[in-house]
Amino acid sequence: MKVWVINGPNLNLLGTREPEIYGGDTLQKINEQAMAYGEKNGLTVECFQSNHEGEIVDFIQQAGEVADFIILNPAAYSHYSIAVRDAVAAVAVPVIEVHLSNIAARDEFRHHSVVAPVAKGQISGFGSYGYLMALDAAKHFLWGGLK
Amino acid sequence: MKVWVINGPNLNLLGTREPEIYGGDTLQKINEQAMAYGEKNGLTVECFQSNHEGEIVDFIQQAGEVADFIILNPAAYSHYSIAVRDAVAAVAVPVIEVHLSNIAARDEFRHHSVVAPVAKGQISGFGSYGYLMALDAAKHFLWGGLK
Amino acid sequence: MKVWVINGPNLNLLGTREPEIYGGDTLQKINEQAMAYGEKNGLTVECFQSNHEGEIVDFIQQAGEVADFIILNPAAYSHYSIAVRDAVAAVAVPVIEVHLSNIAARDEFRHHSVVAPVAKGQISGFGSYGYLMALDAAKHFLWGGLK
Amino acid sequence: MKVWVINGPNLNLLGTREPEIYGGDTLQKINEQAMAYGEKNGLTVECFQSNHEGEIVDFIQQAGEVADFIILNPAAYSHYSIAVRDAVAAVAVPVIEVHLSNIAARDEFRHHSVVAPVAKGQISGFGSYGYLMALDAAKHFLWGGLK
Amino acid sequence: MKVWVINGPNLNLLGTREPEIYGGDTLQKINEQAMAYGEKNGLTVECFQSNHEGEIVDFIQQAGEVADFIILNPAAYSHYSIAVRDAVAAVAVPVIEVHLSNIAARDEFRHHSVVAPVAKGQISGFGSYGYLMALDAAKHFLWGGLK
Amino acid sequence: MKVWVINGPNLNLLGTREPEIYGGDTLQKINEQAMAYGEKNGLTVECFQSNHEGEIVDFIQQAGEVADFIILNPAAYSHYSIAVRDAVAAVAVPVIEVHLSNIAARDEFRHHSVVAPVAKGQISGFGSYGYLMALDAAKHFLWGGLK
Amino acid sequence: MKVWVINGPNLNLLGTREPEIYGGDTLQKINEQAMAYGEKNGLTVECFQSNHEGEIVDFIQQAGEVADFIILNPAAYSHYSIAVRDAVAAVAVPVIEVHLSNIAARDEFRHHSVVAPVAKGQISGFGSYGYLMALDAAKHFLWGGLK
Amino acid sequence: MKVWVINGPNLNLLGTREPEIYGGDTLQKINEQAMAYGEKNGLTVECFQSNHEGEIVDFIQQAGEVADFIILNPAAYSHYSIAVRDAVAAVAVPVIEVHLSNIAARDEFRHHSVVAPVAKGQISGFGSYGYLMALDAAKHFLWGGLK
Amino acid sequence: MKVWVINGPNLNLLGTREPEIYGGDTLQKINEQAMAYGEKNGLTVECFQSNHEGEIVDFIQQAGEVADFIILNPAAYSHYSIAVRDAVAAVAVPVIEVHLSNIAARDEFRHHSVVAPVAKGQISGFGSYGYLMALDAAKHFLWGGLK
Amino acid sequence: MKVWVINGPNLNLLGTREPEIYGGDTLQKINEQAMAYGEKNGLTVECFQSNHEGEIVDFIQQAGEVADFIILNPAAYSHYSIAVRDAVAAVAVPVIEVHLSNIAARDEFRHHSVVAPVAKGQISGFGSYGYLMALDAAKHFLWGGLK
Amino acid sequence: MKVWVINGPNLNLLGTREPEIYGGDTLQKINEQAMAYGEKNGLTVECFQSNHEGEIVDFIQQAGEVADFIILNPAAYSHYSIAVRDAVAAVAVPVIEVHLSNIAARDEFRHHSVVAPVAKGQISGFGSYGYLMALDAAKHFLWGGLK
Amino acid sequence: MKVWVINGPNLNLLGTREPEIYGGDTLQKINEQAMAYGEKNGLTVECFQSNHEGEIVDFIQQAGEVADFIILNPAAYSHYSIAVRDAVAAVAVPVIEVHLSNIAARDEFRHHSVVAPVAKGQISGFGSYGYLMALDAAKHFLWGGLK
Repeated sequence: MKVWVINGPNLNLLGTREPEIYGGDTLQKINEQAMAYGEKNGLTVECFQSNHEGEIVDFIQQAGEVADFIILNPAAYSHYSIAVRDAVAAVAVPVIEVHLSNIAARDEFRHHSVVAPVAKGQISGFGSYGYLMALDAAKHFLWGGLK
Repeated sequence: MKVWVINGPNLNLLGTREPEIYGGDTLQKINEQAMAYGEKNGLTVECFQSNHEGEIVDFIQQAGEVADFIILNPAAYSHYSIAVRDAVAAVAVPVIEVHLSNIAARDEFRHHSVVAPVAKGQISGFGSYGYLMALDAAKHFLWGGLK
Repeated sequence: MKVWVINGPNLNLLGTREPEIYGGDTLQKINEQAMAYGEKNGLTVECFQSNHEGEIVDFIQQAGEVADFIILNPAAYSHYSIAVRDAVAAVAVPVIEVHLSNIAARDEFRHHSVVAPVAKGQISGFGSYGYLMALDAAKHFLWGGLK
Repeated sequence: MKVWVINGPNLNLLGTREPEIYGGDTLQKINEQAMAYGEKNGLTVECFQSNHEGEIVDFIQQAGEVADFIILNPAAYSHYSIAVRDAVAAVAVPVIEVHLSNIAARDEFRHHSVVAPVAKGQISGFGSYGYLMALDAAKHFLWGGLK
Repeated sequence: MKVWVINGPNLNLLGTREPEIYGGDTLQKINEQAMAYGEKNGLTVECFQSNHEGEIVDFIQQAGEVADFIILNPAAYSHYSIAVRDAVAAVAVPVIEVHLSNIAARDEFRHHSVVAPVAKGQISGFGSYGYLMALDAAKHFLWGGLK
Repeated sequence: MKVWVINGPNLNLLGTREPEIYGGDTLQKINEQAMAYGEKNGLTVECFQSNHEGEIVDFIQQAGEVADFIILNPAAYSHYSIAVRDAVAAVAVPVIEVHLSNIAARDEFRHHSVVAPVAKGQISGFGSYGYLMALDAAKHFLWGGLK
Repeated sequence: MKVWVINGPNLNLLGTREPEIYGGDTLQKINEQAMAYGEKNGLTVECFQSNHEGEIVDFIQQAGEVADFIILNPAAYSHYSIAVRDAVAAVAVPVIEVHLSNIAARDEFRHHSVVAPVAKGQISGFGSYGYLMALDAAKHFLWGGLK
Repeated sequence: MKVWVINGPNLNLLGTREPEIYGGDTLQKINEQAMAYGEKNGLTVECFQSNHEGEIVDFIQQAGEVADFIILNPAAYSHYSIAVRDAVAAVAVPVIEVHLSNIAARDEFRHHSVVAPVAKGQISGFGSYGYLMALDAAKHFLWGGLK
Repeated sequence: MKVWVINGPNLNLLGTREPEIYGGDTLQKINEQAMAYGEKNGLTVECFQSNHEGEIVDFIQQAGEVADFIILNPAAYSHYSIAVRDAVAAVAVPVIEVHLSNIAARDEFRHHSVVAPVAKGQISGFGSYGYLMALDAAKHFLWGGLK
Repeated sequence: MKVWVINGPNLNLLGTREPEIYGGDTLQKINEQAMAYGEKNGLTVECFQSNHEGEIVDFIQQAGEVADFIILNPAAYSHYSIAVRDAVAAVAVPVIEVHLSNIAARDEFRHHSVVAPVAKGQISGFGSYGYLMALDAAKHFLWGGLK
Repeated sequence: MKVWVINGPNLNLLGTREPEIYGGDTLQKINEQAMAYGEKNGLTVECFQSNHEGEIVDFIQQAGEVADFIILNPAAYSHYSIAVRDAVAAVAVPVIEVHLSNIAARDEFRHHSVVAPVAKGQISGFGSYGYLMALDAAKHFLWGGLK
Repeated sequence: MKVWVINGPNLNLLGTREPEIYGGDTLQKINEQAMAYGEKNGLTVECFQSNHEGEIVDFIQQAGEVADFIILNPAAYSHYSIAVRDAVAAVAVPVIEVHLSNIAARDEFRHHSVVAPVAKGQISGFGSYGYLMALDAAKHFLWGGLK
């Protein structure tokens, strides 16, 4: 089973960018944890990042053809990219939206995600651990069964 | 380590109430799964439900004294109970907000949670499995370590 | 056939509270009229009142199990209690919303009822006579036939 | 005693227009029921319909001179016709606003009636039976006494 | 020189309708004063009234062909009739908007006139004397000169 | 096959009314073009205009019984007439909304059409040629086939 | 009888300031016309101008003690000075609000006057002639009688 | 003379809850100060606290029968409890609203109190000393006289 | 210890201005009471009033250099004067905002004070007695101790 | 004569993406129809698609140099891309905005197009036939003449 | 060439007022720098400050007669003084708006300047150096040429 | 010292695009002026432009590693690109926002910049000269000293 993890703009700066908000781990480290966790659980995890809205749309469309689950942190695009929303709505593969920080506790304009209504669910505020929670949920919804 | 799971109004009707939204499990079954999962993972899980806003506040205050983590599904109160919000903000114990359904995909007035800004994080849209995800996150933040 | 009449906060003060708005009848008198009218029409009418949002929710849930129709005057809770709304939506029994005064002619914040969209219908502005109109409608929808 | 029943735009299509919302009865049938119910109860009921806002205003003004009660379903005009509102406010005869469907459960723009604040009361959501309820209320307020 | 005075809905009730707001003069008396004042000042004044939005539009269009000035009290239509606004904008003849009452001192929804931006000017709050002030202004703009 | 073309308020002034916005053709000329185009394409085109909202509603209801397609330019009524919207929704015949000018490029209050959500589609900004485009679309949807 | 004419900020620039909006007359000329018109009609007219909100308030308070009518063009202060509004409301002398330009046809923020609700009436859009119309109305309300 | 001091949700946590906002005094200490101050001034002070909206309503209704003044800190309920507002409006006894912190300097949603419009007055931002100020005002309004 | 009492626009009219709202005491009498109360309590009280926003700002700046506490009734300026707000924020001396009437019970635009967020606290609705309460609070915060 | 057809994000999925909204034709088929129709009518049609906002901007700029007309379906970017709007405004070539679905009948956030005010016109709701209608209009405006 | 530098309310407190926001320089020092820089560059710089809105208006009007450029820091008045805006619009001399702090990064109500739309341009966030930048721009626009 | 000048969408069209708004200089000419001015002042200026939001983000991130100052004209992206905002916030290098036109004097949606709150400051309305002003400011903040 295949899971694509797609990360949005400025997440390539993780570790150096406002670490008090986003934590000290680099994106590479987070990706490695996700891939390792996947391997242990029978999931092939592939990781993507782009600052380009169009590429995020491309990734989602491609994942729609080859993956069984998408884990998406749209970062800034969460709040205004109807293009990303439409891509999520257009593919048959379920999408889990992940945010490192608790977006409800930050700037007003970050409280609302235009992607969320077409996602399966969201996980927000658990730092990089949120990706593992999302993988866990993907596993549960792919194969059923409790923990 | 002790985790209190506190459920808000009308969740006692789970299983019969709009099962296409909330799933077919009863609250009792969900509680039993949570307690079983806790037991396997070294967490003592206790479960509470009330339709009364004041009792939810009472539960949170009490949990603030005896528990190490709170998992809270404020249900309808999520959207207007500043009293519940203040209780969450008043206790030192971290609180994870859980919603069975994806609240971003429902009525406009359910998109916003007044509790979320003072919670540690939210999990929304994963049905009753969300409580296990929250327990898992509690475990992670209490003892560190990856999955 | 059983009809529960559930009255919300401060309605226990009827007769003394702002009689120019709510009329001079006490709640007891209104309840007696409703029960008498029910008796004449083959309906067992039971009356409840509480200032507690949670108790209103409890009453609605209980009525959902034993009654055939609910007549609900949510009073102040009409305007913000999503918990009461969710209770109304959760039970299979139809609910008629009644207001003594014409809420559209009062404070701006009283114009909107969050309960109304999940009620069967509303009757507003006819004073205590509105409860009898609601009972009449209940009878019509339980047994069909015109007046 | 005379009661005028005035129906607004598109209600002449009742029976064929979106019957899942408005019911399957034609306006003629509804009018006949109202007149029959009036006859049984000592009320002379006359029925009017127009798609023209100005004619609704004319009807209300005329009713203001010859009728003892007005039952008004302003339909679409409910939501924006200040002209109809002003006519209702200008006449001394009391007006009951009736809606077939539960307008609070429909499009956002149908939730608010500009006429309601100057009506005596509203009845909404009871289908064609709402007209009989309104006649009943008219009778009560004309002659007092309970049912 | 010809001036048309066009009055909107419910103004035919003047004298009996809420006289504490609109004054005790009937529309007929107001019209006669206007015509007499016109006669004294070399203006042929003709007066029209309708409850029908479409007729107000018709009157304005006709006045656009035969009159030199239009005095318009759109009454309720002031606040939402873009059709009346468009008629005013479409004709070359200048239009003075008159209101008997001070609309800024009444309901919130009466504060704004959609017609005003395309009128030459407004006179509001001077009772029936406002029509004479408008005629006076018409005279001034037709023939120049001070009083 | 029959197509009714219904034009709203002030469109009878076309050719003289703000020609820089609406073009220099009279309504008569536009109607003749439409009828000629219809004749060439097997469509019987009939044209109506009224300044009266109620008549527009009447026309739509009548067209609902005798026509196969309606082409509607509601003009000013586009922006507030829920009565016209309800008429469009009430008839089974599909309706194409046409605007001569690009309404998105004009006053803020012209950007939104309350009729559009229940129309089949809109054509806006192409001047009088828009009616021919609408007829063309009607033909396409009546008989299928490409151009 | 005494009438004070009080003019607000930047009106001292009349004649040079945006003459296409405000006309080419200087404030001095407008004042002289007003005083001359007053003299002819038995009114002693005194004229004041200030750019200072506090002085406008002072003028109104003083006029409240010595004048029989106030004609006020609050200019920019119309749109936000609650201090000026309170002064108008505090004095027993009636106040007529005058605007040279048609404020409804200008910037959105000029459409609303916070002073208007406590004025007797407004005259807007008639250029400097508006002051004479206001004097005329003052005369009418002081001594009654038609023109 | 009797004064009831009624405190709302989470105020039982005073002293431990966010002391930088609410001060370091416990509720018990604040109550004791109030009772001592009352005793010195001829007022019998009784103190109540509840996290339950319904109980706050009950307390106010009971105070309405036995007390001469009510001092109310509705805490979180200030901002949305129309039920509490209605209770305050329903009793004849005057109510002073007290807030420990300056609510205008905190979260946007705390700026507005739905209770305030029906209270006699508010005191906000003076910490626990505000209760003594309220008692002092109660004394003044019960017996007149200056300090 | 020195306390400056600064009063805003139109408060010089107290006693004659809408006494049903502001009470029958003149400003002079209120000032004398404040000075007398100060004298009894070891506070030198000085009183200022101006209708000029700029002078209020000047007074606050001067008080910032010579006084130990400021009692400020900004009157109309409360609702829009960011200049007054900035002066309050700029001085180190604490400021108590006082309103004679209960501003929450009056016009919508009076509910919000732009000054309040930078004041120490507010007292509203207690008439002229509010100044004495403010002096009392000033005394408490200058010297501590209970009443 | 050259016409560029530019399609925005996710339109490459046409045929598989929500066919009940967008129809069952693939983008390739739609493009082929457009090119064939162009060929028949003397127009060289070239088709472009991108998920990237920047590329849409690039296409429009390039078309601005080589094409005579642009047909643009900005899809999701319609609703927020001021960059696309500015590109449309920057080029001299006229742009027709096309939408497959009736955007007025879908999510609230799809009702408004930021591109429309600078387009020549819009065609919305006619499915893939809308492109042919746009080509037809382009032909009309390039060469004049009726159909 | 003459440049007037006009500073608004509370800027006379610079150096002591919230230096973390406004910097540690006094207004006198800033003015001296500006005058020195002017002298070096052939500009006669004169500096004014007032807390009074009316005086700011007066200064702008006077500058309109004697200066070639105005540099204006309206401080608090930026956000609501339409009187200042009108003065800027009324004079022919170009005005540069300067803010010491980055107003977009402060309170919501400081984000918007009512003066900006009629200024030539704004400089915001560069501390006291912003005045020199404005002088530099004035020089450039008076005499052309690059740096 | 190194300064990157980054220009957003459609700025590559400068000189031909709406020159009455943006001036007649091409971007190349503006860049050459900036580089020349930098050379004279000890700053290495490098210039970038893209229509792609993602590339703007990339440029900012790269500048964050190699440059000492960023001058950014986000053009259309100013008004909605939270991705660009986040990039600006994520890098340690200070950013000056420049706009050629006075954005406060244009369309409503251009008044607000989502980037501004995290920039050091903005310069708006000075045409291409604004870039030189920004370079000047960069120099000042890098090396201190006055002009």
